[in-house]
Amino acid sequence: MPKLKPEEAENRRREIIEAARSCFLRNGFHQTTTDEICHEAAITPGGLYHYFDSKDDIISAVVMDTARTRVGRVASVTDGAVDVRSAFREMTAFFYRVIRDPDLDTRTRLDIEIWAETLHNDKLAAITREGLALRRQWLEALINRGREEGMYKPEVDPRGLANLLLVTMMAMRVSGLLWRDDFDIEEAMESLVLMHTGCLSHGTAVGLAEEGVPVDGGKRPG
Amino acid sequence: MPKLKPEEAENRRREIIEAARSCFLRNGFHQTTTDEICHEAAITPGGLYHYFDSKDDIISAVVMDTARTRVGRVASVTDGAVDVRSAFREMTAFFYRVIRDPDLDTRTRLDIEIWAETLHNDKLAAITREGLALRRQWLEALINRGREEGMYKPEVDPRGLANLLLVTMMAMRVSGLLWRDDFDIEEAMESLVLMHTGCLSHGTAVGLAEEGVPVDGGKRPG
Repeated sequence: MPKLKPEEAENRRREIIEAARSCFLRNGFHQTTTDEICHEAAITPGGLYHYFDSKDDIISAVVMDTARTRVGRVASVTDGAVDVRSAFREMTAFFYRVIRDPDLDTRTRLDIEIWAETLHNDKLAAITREGLALRRQWLEALINRGREEGMYKPEVDPRGLANLLLVTMMAMRVSGLLWRDDFDIEEAMESLVLMHTGCLSHGTAVGLAEEGVPVDGGKRPG
Repeated sequence: MPKLKPEEAENRRREIIEAARSCFLRNGFHQTTTDEICHEAAITPGGLYHYFDSKDDIISAVVMDTARTRVGRVASVTDGAVDVRSAFREMTAFFYRVIRDPDLDTRTRLDIEIWAETLHNDKLAAITREGLALRRQWLEALINRGREEGMYKPEVDPRGLANLLLVTMMAMRVSGLLWRDDFDIEEAMESLVLMHTGCLSHGTAVGLAEEGVPVDGGKRPG
């Protein structure tokens, strides 16, 4: 095994992760062998085991890499926003692009396979939890800022809301895949946006409509 | 095989469904053999095949029975409500009981196994879609009534909102199981209730706070 510089080794490691992801997406997690990953990454089994101890190790790396990439992508669309309200508008537009991506179902299929696998595999379960934590911390920080800016009421719990929004997004992807024509992701997404912006009802939840305060339709972001 | 009266045959069929559900919950869907189901239901394989053609047929019956039972239970708590707003309050209280049920994780584990299986099994996929449709139709009818009562704005899409709420509830159960201490179902549930009742923000989404309209804290149902 030739001695590689640290950045070369890191690049090689990333290539293997990408190759493994391609195999998993194409043939499923269970059907993919380490031989196939070696072939896809153009590496020998000896070379592969220099970077990863097992197939479990590879899938763990893919899971964490996916979480980091997804956080990075969302963060890149919200970074320029002047406030959290605008950040949510950017995020909504971004998620509309995500749900229209033709590769969405392929990625969601792999997610479901991995979740089912975590039921029997504690190490993988720990990694998927870490992936969730990474995404939640990011969204929680954004919601916290939104609370400081007065977008949310002080009684809103940033962690609870971050968790809720994250798993709702995941649930919509999963449902679109499992239930096809019976579950329209765009319809559900519109309801989520209305609900998040408090536009489902005429303000009656806070007693406004009963008091005869006129409420305009409210603009939907995104 | 002795000739049974229709209601006796229906009872026997239900007993087999219950026995199969117990086996699936205890040992998982894949690990359960038809022999084990026969043992649990105290029936011979010949007797079993009088009612069900295959293990797939049994799991399909379990899925539909679960959907019907769950709709029946929710409907029973909302049936006496004077209006849809009260029905939602009853439903929220009901779901708090559901998420505190010690058997919740066992049932959710089976749901995940079944969803993963639907990726490779079109017949089962069709049945789970039917189960979703059953629940959605019920919730959609309730939301439609809520729209007529003025609880929701006319622009709310009952089908989209019903789908969203259904899959969010499923997602919370799944996340509580997969992510344990990293995902607090009750925290997420509180955020969902705040969001659904339009109490996340100070009405700024509809421009109220900017116009200086005083907004009280709003009571959380449930």
